[in-house]
Amino acid sequence: MREELAIFNRIFTATKESIENFMAILDPVIQNAKDDHERLYYHHIYEEEEQRLSRLEELIPLITNFENDKNDTIFSPTNNEFNRLLQELNLEKFGLHNFVEHLDLALFKFTDEVRSTQLQQMREVSYQDYQQVKNFLNEINGKFDRDYVDPHAHHDKDHDHLAPLISQTATAKNHKSPKKGFTVGSLL
Amino acid sequence: MREELAIFNRIFTATKESIENFMAILDPVIQNAKDDHERLYYHHIYEEEEQRLSRLEELIPLITNFENDKNDTIFSPTNNEFNRLLQELNLEKFGLHNFVEHLDLALFKFTDEVRSTQLQQMREVSYQDYQQVKNFLNEINGKFDRDYVDPHAHHDKDHDHLAPLISQTATAKNHKSPKKGFTVGSLL
Repeated sequence: MREELAIFNRIFTATKESIENFMAILDPVIQNAKDDHERLYYHHIYEEEEQRLSRLEELIPLITNFENDKNDTIFSPTNNEFNRLLQELNLEKFGLHNFVEHLDLALFKFTDEVRSTQLQQMREVSYQDYQQVKNFLNEINGKFDRDYVDPHAHHDKDHDHLAPLISQTATAKNHKSPKKGFTVGSLL
Repeated sequence: MREELAIFNRIFTATKESIENFMAILDPVIQNAKDDHERLYYHHIYEEEEQRLSRLEELIPLITNFENDKNDTIFSPTNNEFNRLLQELNLEKFGLHNFVEHLDLALFKFTDEVRSTQLQQMREVSYQDYQQVKNFLNEINGKFDRDYVDPHAHHDKDHDHLAPLISQTATAKNHKSPKKGFTVGSLL
């Protein structure tokens, strides 16, 4: 678990910096939006990342506390703090997933070399980090807390192969209707 | 606190239904998207609401448990479950805020009478519910847990007057740069 904590710490510290870089790209776009719709669109994405940033500012010290605690009995489902940690990590797994999609959406719009290069780089790192966090959480939930029910599991299943944009959008055509009892199918 | 719990329960049960109605509007739009960008855009919003739906399916029973517990000492910051409830409610306050913005974005696109009427109705209810949840949480955090630090407080402050779209977008021009140490300023 300690090895995973160190990697979680690295990933979420790095994604914090990526959020700030992404916000710095969005800021002038919001300032210079051509109309209200464009302004609201980028502002909304900016705010969602700002909310994630605030949550990460709480999560990273929580991870650090677990890293510094030498008592291995803390890694138990009977420990409320550990359950809280798992809950927060699961939430930020989706935060990373949504960030990848925010970057994919931005890549459609910001096609100049400077921004598209920076966004593509962030996108690749964030995608790898999302996969890593997802795999760790699957192992941890299985290992430490067999009764743990991931409320997003049905949803997350759809993201096992969240792939680069080109194949995402290609397969998004296979979108299923929730009315048929499927989840939306996601961008596999 | 019991009165607030009953209203939280009503609000989050009602917003669950609104999410499902919104997803039903988005579903055919995703299916029939004119290009990959449009598909990813609506699919991404659909997924964020799907994630919120999954969280509400955990939150509502948690609220109900507190309603059914006759022991008023549970409403204490020393009770981990109560702190968890406050945390989840705070997260879903932002879920409601983001939902209002998802509806505002949809109102730019779906201008036919049937959908715009339905969306506007959902938007008005969700906006009122967001304000109600925000006000209750401010009171509760002050009353039960003076040490409670809302990680989003700096951000939420910007939403005190989240207003109908017209004035939102009008004032969004006052957007401040985070580089100057402001939050994004939000759609006051």
